[in-house]
Amino acid sequence: MTRHGPVDPAIAVDFRTNPGRYRHWRLSVDGAVATLTMDVDEQGGLVPGYELKLNSYDLGVDIELYDAVQRLRFEHPEVKAVIVTSGKEKVFCAGANIRMLAASAHPWKVNFCKFTNETRNGIEDATENSGQAYIAALNGTASGGGYELALACGHIMLIDDRSSVVSLPELPLLGVLPGTGGLTRVVDKRHVRRDLADYFATKSEGIGGRKAVAWKLVDEVTPRAKWQDTVAERSMLAATASPRLAGPGAGVELTPLVKNRTGEEIAYTHVSAALDRDRGVAEITVRGPDVGPPPDMAGAHALGAAFWTLAMTRELDDLILDLRTNEPLLGTWVFRTRGEAARVLAYDELLLANQGSDWLANEVVLYLKRTLKRLDVTSRSLITLIEPGSCFAGSLLELALAADRSYMLDGPPPDDPDSKDRAAIRLGAANFGPLPMGNDLSRLTTRFYGDNAGFDGAAGAIGRDLEAAEAEQLGLVTFAPDDIDWDDEVRMALEERASFSPDALSGLEANYRFAGPETVETKIFGRLSAWQNWIFYRPNASGPEGALRKYGTGQRADFDQKRV
Amino acid sequence: MTRHGPVDPAIAVDFRTNPGRYRHWRLSVDGAVATLTMDVDEQGGLVPGYELKLNSYDLGVDIELYDAVQRLRFEHPEVKAVIVTSGKEKVFCAGANIRMLAASAHPWKVNFCKFTNETRNGIEDATENSGQAYIAALNGTASGGGYELALACGHIMLIDDRSSVVSLPELPLLGVLPGTGGLTRVVDKRHVRRDLADYFATKSEGIGGRKAVAWKLVDEVTPRAKWQDTVAERSMLAATASPRLAGPGAGVELTPLVKNRTGEEIAYTHVSAALDRDRGVAEITVRGPDVGPPPDMAGAHALGAAFWTLAMTRELDDLILDLRTNEPLLGTWVFRTRGEAARVLAYDELLLANQGSDWLANEVVLYLKRTLKRLDVTSRSLITLIEPGSCFAGSLLELALAADRSYMLDGPPPDDPDSKDRAAIRLGAANFGPLPMGNDLSRLTTRFYGDNAGFDGAAGAIGRDLEAAEAEQLGLVTFAPDDIDWDDEVRMALEERASFSPDALSGLEANYRFAGPETVETKIFGRLSAWQNWIFYRPNASGPEGALRKYGTGQRADFDQKRV
Repeated sequence: MTRHGPVDPAIAVDFRTNPGRYRHWRLSVDGAVATLTMDVDEQGGLVPGYELKLNSYDLGVDIELYDAVQRLRFEHPEVKAVIVTSGKEKVFCAGANIRMLAASAHPWKVNFCKFTNETRNGIEDATENSGQAYIAALNGTASGGGYELALACGHIMLIDDRSSVVSLPELPLLGVLPGTGGLTRVVDKRHVRRDLADYFATKSEGIGGRKAVAWKLVDEVTPRAKWQDTVAERSMLAATASPRLAGPGAGVELTPLVKNRTGEEIAYTHVSAALDRDRGVAEITVRGPDVGPPPDMAGAHALGAAFWTLAMTRELDDLILDLRTNEPLLGTWVFRTRGEAARVLAYDELLLANQGSDWLANEVVLYLKRTLKRLDVTSRSLITLIEPGSCFAGSLLELALAADRSYMLDGPPPDDPDSKDRAAIRLGAANFGPLPMGNDLSRLTTRFYGDNAGFDGAAGAIGRDLEAAEAEQLGLVTFAPDDIDWDDEVRMALEERASFSPDALSGLEANYRFAGPETVETKIFGRLSAWQNWIFYRPNASGPEGALRKYGTGQRADFDQKRV
Repeated sequence: MTRHGPVDPAIAVDFRTNPGRYRHWRLSVDGAVATLTMDVDEQGGLVPGYELKLNSYDLGVDIELYDAVQRLRFEHPEVKAVIVTSGKEKVFCAGANIRMLAASAHPWKVNFCKFTNETRNGIEDATENSGQAYIAALNGTASGGGYELALACGHIMLIDDRSSVVSLPELPLLGVLPGTGGLTRVVDKRHVRRDLADYFATKSEGIGGRKAVAWKLVDEVTPRAKWQDTVAERSMLAATASPRLAGPGAGVELTPLVKNRTGEEIAYTHVSAALDRDRGVAEITVRGPDVGPPPDMAGAHALGAAFWTLAMTRELDDLILDLRTNEPLLGTWVFRTRGEAARVLAYDELLLANQGSDWLANEVVLYLKRTLKRLDVTSRSLITLIEPGSCFAGSLLELALAADRSYMLDGPPPDDPDSKDRAAIRLGAANFGPLPMGNDLSRLTTRFYGDNAGFDGAAGAIGRDLEAAEAEQLGLVTFAPDDIDWDDEVRMALEERASFSPDALSGLEANYRFAGPETVETKIFGRLSAWQNWIFYRPNASGPEGALRKYGTGQRADFDQKRV
């Protein structure tokens, strides 16, 4: 019923920023150790209506954190340890701002949690795969989302000043869950015993001191007198132990992203999206490289942010975030590519050959991995169209493997029946491991989960151009209509998708996309976030008498006590 | 706000039934092969307001199915294969009744789905662990929950009559998900490729014939002319291959459960529950055996349904179902036991020593396993109180390990300070594998997930009486207050629990209870059900213009198109 509604300008969010514009974080680098200091500007909320007291955060604060984590990886190859701490006295971070949450519409809350989750997953990815170890230096109380930020770090230090604690007060104070991975990380990552974790999440005043260590909520507590020295020592140790890869010492500057956004189109250099509000569709086109890759990584370093894979990934990343946040009515994303498959594969080969030895190669592959993971947890229907002139090969083929469905044209372009052009896809090394989903499996392995013969059949076709009939037969595309049927079949598929319940589609896709084993990450996006969606939406949290609304009024929430 | 509300008599449900009372199913046994024929009485709905057309079902229909599956296991040791089929022409089962769903309150829908899920998991348990192979003989169309019932069977046959299909039409027709495991089983159990599964779940008219086989939606299609012979052949083959255990040929009759239910109490022989509506608490007491076990399984067969472990499990099972369905305002379940630990362990030992050789021993252990699994997915806070005179040992210790928290009294009973009685718990073989949770791990392993030293420490104490201080130190109980603090601490814990948002508690517990790996079963109860909870609750499904309400009116639902 609101298909044609305009984007609300009050919530049109730009994810592009840089340290010179930060209002809430300070990023400083001292040799191998960087420090990220959270010092939130109370008056710097993204939208009016709330003050960001006690280092509480909103999406704007988290956009800066995301930017800082990215720049550390690309612009600071020398950094091997990152201290996350607070610029306020006595408080590390009070978590997501409650008034912001209470005033936000349901889709905003859910999307906000998704982005903060992804940023925290990115911190873990930097720690595990980039040799940039994150250390949470809690120089004051870390509550709720503040503690969840600490949980994303590999080592948690808490100051022992008889007042600073860690806490997850969401349930007792707000009637919601710690929705940014807290519950999952407490038991599945830090291995806090579940009954102690239960007590912890009901005790709004939190836990500090030795008990916090004994329960594994933090790794160590340190008296104020030894705080600075101990933090420095831990960060130096982490830096020394870091497997951060070699390569040129100069970083790659993430230059401002060139983006042209109108009501009808979002256009970057390699990526563009036509916004079709009548059909509720974003038609996304990713263009392959115009030229082949440089002969070696030295050339890639020289190109920097202009290196195709990095440039394309940055654009795709920004587009995903923009569409998710600003265009909730575009329920279907259609992916196309244009370009030369061989060139895409050549870029992949350069990166994969050097991923184990060159930090930039490693960072670009990891960034593409994280960006594709965003697609997997995006609550939009993903449809990939494979037509003549496309370049779904290697890394770009992941756009087809990530899709809920793919259609591959078996014949000439419908508007040029005499053409000899035929669509083809090509599997490459990028499809066999370096770009895993959140479940730690490649999209190809997930696709053929439990079907080893199917996987082997597809895998055997690596490196060959596969036209539509063969691609369909190998199970790599969903349908392969001919040129007579193509337009109608695609049109009907999109119209049909737009006719379904958007909620049911989100649930369907979230279940189908993750066959096979689960990980901390998929548990956060699946089990935890799905529960949080429901709880956020219930009157006990968000109704006029709900806990989120009553917080800070001095009145208690009035709960419907029925257990569901 | 509705803490004191009475139970609505219109929905007070009794789960006890027997084949003589079935209105919707026929159970026939022919040697090693049983046939369960679904033939739903249209006028036999559990509550007024809908007709159960086309073999659609409500909770009453599923209660009979659950009873039949249980009786096949205990009363028919000779049965090694079970055919599930329909007594109607052209239709196997149309799934859950839509008008019932549309008219039901949210908690009812969620609880109904949970029970149907458990029954289907029980069918898989019988196939995998009892040597009773279930074969879905779809002699007509199986839609939605009808197909989900088939998915729980190990082999799916579809009649090839050019009209019968399988389908999951929930999303296109109703704006909800197939909520009884369908999405998970399609990709994770049957390994249907996710893009084909996507198409299938959007195509309300379903898929039959060879395509249904090629896509792995069914195992085989059979022409009408060969239908009866092929079904008979498949069931004979399954029976021949069955590893059903030996033992006396006579079954154990599941005699009528003696139950006394008032507004204040539910009492059975070994299990009772005091219903404290003021505090929102059900105080459950499980009594250990009054006498030791018979010397061998022959004695257990002779005792039949009076054998303590079986009798106690049946009572606990019925109590869980009763409280869940009829008492949603009792948000906390408190567990106590009374009796001799040594006797509980003696029963465990008899069963575990014979589980691999005697069908009854195997069935009792599996039934206890399934009943404890119900606790793990129950959306109530579970608190276990361990006091002098209790018998938390072996299988009954699982009631403490399943709890969100346990309190163990470290001292004499508060009302008898001179007493020498002290509470003790004892680990036994039952705690180390035979009673796994849905994640396939024991509760002890899940408790110490990622903490091998903690597990080893606890495991080393097997067979010894552990008093409060040691039990707490080993991590087997949460808190061990002394007799001075006991009453206050327990009272405050229960009062505090009752003050929290019931929704947030359900989410918290559902996340914490399943540390570690996930399985098809935990994915169904975690990821899938959590999404379904949310979708059921959204106006796009259940609002006045939602798809569930509009179904059958000829009008289309009017969706809020925002993607969340």
